[in-house]
Amino acid sequence: MAKMGALSLTPATESSVIATESTGTANFTEWRTGVRHAVLAHLVDFVGPRRAELDDTRIHAAGEILTAFVSGGKCLRSMFVYLGWLCGAAPDEAALRAAASFELLHVFALLQDDVMDGSTERRGRPAAHLQFARWHRERGMSGSSRRFGESAAVLLGDLCLIWSEQMLRESGVEPRRLQRAWPRYDTMRTELAVGQFADLTSDVRQMPSLETVLDVARRKSGNYTVRRPLEIGAAMSDCDDRTLTQLGRYGAAVGEAFQLRDDVLGVFGSPATTGKPCGGDLLERKATSLVVTAHQLAAPPARAELTELMTARVLDAEALDRWKALIVSTGAVDLIEEMISDRVAAARQHLGDASIDEQVRATLNDMATACTDRIE
Amino acid sequence: MAKMGALSLTPATESSVIATESTGTANFTEWRTGVRHAVLAHLVDFVGPRRAELDDTRIHAAGEILTAFVSGGKCLRSMFVYLGWLCGAAPDEAALRAAASFELLHVFALLQDDVMDGSTERRGRPAAHLQFARWHRERGMSGSSRRFGESAAVLLGDLCLIWSEQMLRESGVEPRRLQRAWPRYDTMRTELAVGQFADLTSDVRQMPSLETVLDVARRKSGNYTVRRPLEIGAAMSDCDDRTLTQLGRYGAAVGEAFQLRDDVLGVFGSPATTGKPCGGDLLERKATSLVVTAHQLAAPPARAELTELMTARVLDAEALDRWKALIVSTGAVDLIEEMISDRVAAARQHLGDASIDEQVRATLNDMATACTDRIE
Repeated sequence: MAKMGALSLTPATESSVIATESTGTANFTEWRTGVRHAVLAHLVDFVGPRRAELDDTRIHAAGEILTAFVSGGKCLRSMFVYLGWLCGAAPDEAALRAAASFELLHVFALLQDDVMDGSTERRGRPAAHLQFARWHRERGMSGSSRRFGESAAVLLGDLCLIWSEQMLRESGVEPRRLQRAWPRYDTMRTELAVGQFADLTSDVRQMPSLETVLDVARRKSGNYTVRRPLEIGAAMSDCDDRTLTQLGRYGAAVGEAFQLRDDVLGVFGSPATTGKPCGGDLLERKATSLVVTAHQLAAPPARAELTELMTARVLDAEALDRWKALIVSTGAVDLIEEMISDRVAAARQHLGDASIDEQVRATLNDMATACTDRIE
Repeated sequence: MAKMGALSLTPATESSVIATESTGTANFTEWRTGVRHAVLAHLVDFVGPRRAELDDTRIHAAGEILTAFVSGGKCLRSMFVYLGWLCGAAPDEAALRAAASFELLHVFALLQDDVMDGSTERRGRPAAHLQFARWHRERGMSGSSRRFGESAAVLLGDLCLIWSEQMLRESGVEPRRLQRAWPRYDTMRTELAVGQFADLTSDVRQMPSLETVLDVARRKSGNYTVRRPLEIGAAMSDCDDRTLTQLGRYGAAVGEAFQLRDDVLGVFGSPATTGKPCGGDLLERKATSLVVTAHQLAAPPARAELTELMTARVLDAEALDRWKALIVSTGAVDLIEEMISDRVAAARQHLGDASIDEQVRATLNDMATACTDRIE
């Protein structure tokens, strides 16, 4: 573990508080790796005893799927909670544990979203509901394997939702500090579910406006990936209202840029990067920011072709390539890239105004880039 | 509101503490009605502002379905929480609010169970996922109405799960008292979800043992209807370990009897009583205690006929009647009735040993009967 002063992962001791000049790329990478390892270790601690209860049901796929999920994430949300914490307090193991609980909330969201969207892949493997369905089919069990798979994935999601709150409450962060977190935590969870609700009616065949798409994305993804985790961490560490406001603005901007990047990757990202099939968002007919922007910018003939592709029952590789080329030709990708850059720049500006430790500021700047990078 | 001393719904004042000799039937009915009204009023207060957020999604069915659910329950769980509270503390508005939060947890369970079981009716109306699907279809929206309906019901369930915990936390019950509730609350929620998990593999075509069926029922229904709510209420009101143990035993016995009664009603109850179609559990091919007991008790020819009915693709009214007659002829109904009586008697015995207020004891005895009565 690098000695990084305010960024140290262990409680400050004389030897660990050695200020470094800046968090260059190497330091930042090391910091991320360190936080991720610490977060995953806390998750293993928490989930381990609970896996036994799942195994009692004799649905052994449940424990395996849970373990794979819990060890496979990038831990972005935990990093933002912890960075929020470091804006107002010293490195702390309980705060890391509290941060780690956000990964369980994320597993809940992924499990249930994949059922609702009918997604087939997640992180390069079959989606959980498909793994459950296969487990059911392979055992020759009665009833519909599809229904079993979907129900099991939803239930595992419920458990993760329950456990995430429990893990935060039992993290060891003082009750007084948690008291500052709960209202924001409740807002975040409600936003997430309500955002997903709104998303259920979003469909490329009823092209929504870009504004509507961004609003849903803000609630469903951006806020709960960056803004709320950061605010919750900062609230727990007693940051004042002014700092919370600046961090909230930074978080909103980075969260939106993160979602826009996700939308670009959802069409152009490689399976190795996204863990999903090539052109996944097109296959799922998602009305993402990129898809909607392309539709708005397209000249009448291109728009007619886009509409045809959107409503096609089957999409082969050739149709996918054609769709991608059309999107590029409208200038939508350039526009979204510009929106991403604008938001990252705005985020840096908001951060510049916040009175926080310089190392934390540098790391937050690095995180803004890492979350929204072309190659991420 | 009746003047019932320890059972009074309002904080004790000189005029309200007028001891009554016993809680006769009339008093008990009045008490239940009073608690239910108070619980429903707290739910309306809590859910009201949140309904506005749901309405923002423009899926107006969501708010309507939520409101109907929240105002239509019998509030058994809230009553047990509140009775637990009265075992150790005086009547208290915050405790009533905490008790009311359990109804939201119940709505979560009902919404998602109905999706997973493919249930068609609930409380005499189409199940929520079917109401959502109809809303989708009537608006000519794109995509599968079935998938939309199921996703929306699951999401509304998620929101109720989140809100139930929030409502308990914000009930006004002192943090010190809540601290005693949380471990039991977490156990209950996990049990509920794990029990439903185990239930997913339960199917009449793979006849489980009565023991397995009772175990799943205990976790999934009995514990979370009676035992855990009662224990949580009692823990919050500082009951000592001995009282908690006695209440836990009472709760386990009544919870099991409640589930057994539910299983009898699931086959023989009228739609007016159950809010479900006649013979609902048979139509859903549920391996309930009654169905499994009949199978075990049946002589070979009857067993063959039962197996045939269980695996029939379609069940008409005649087949349902035949199935019911066969179940009765095995003696399964008599056996289950005996099991119910035994459990209620055992519950009364456990209660006799607990050092609690006499009025509260009388009311818990009345609740044991009310929860497990033939006509309930």
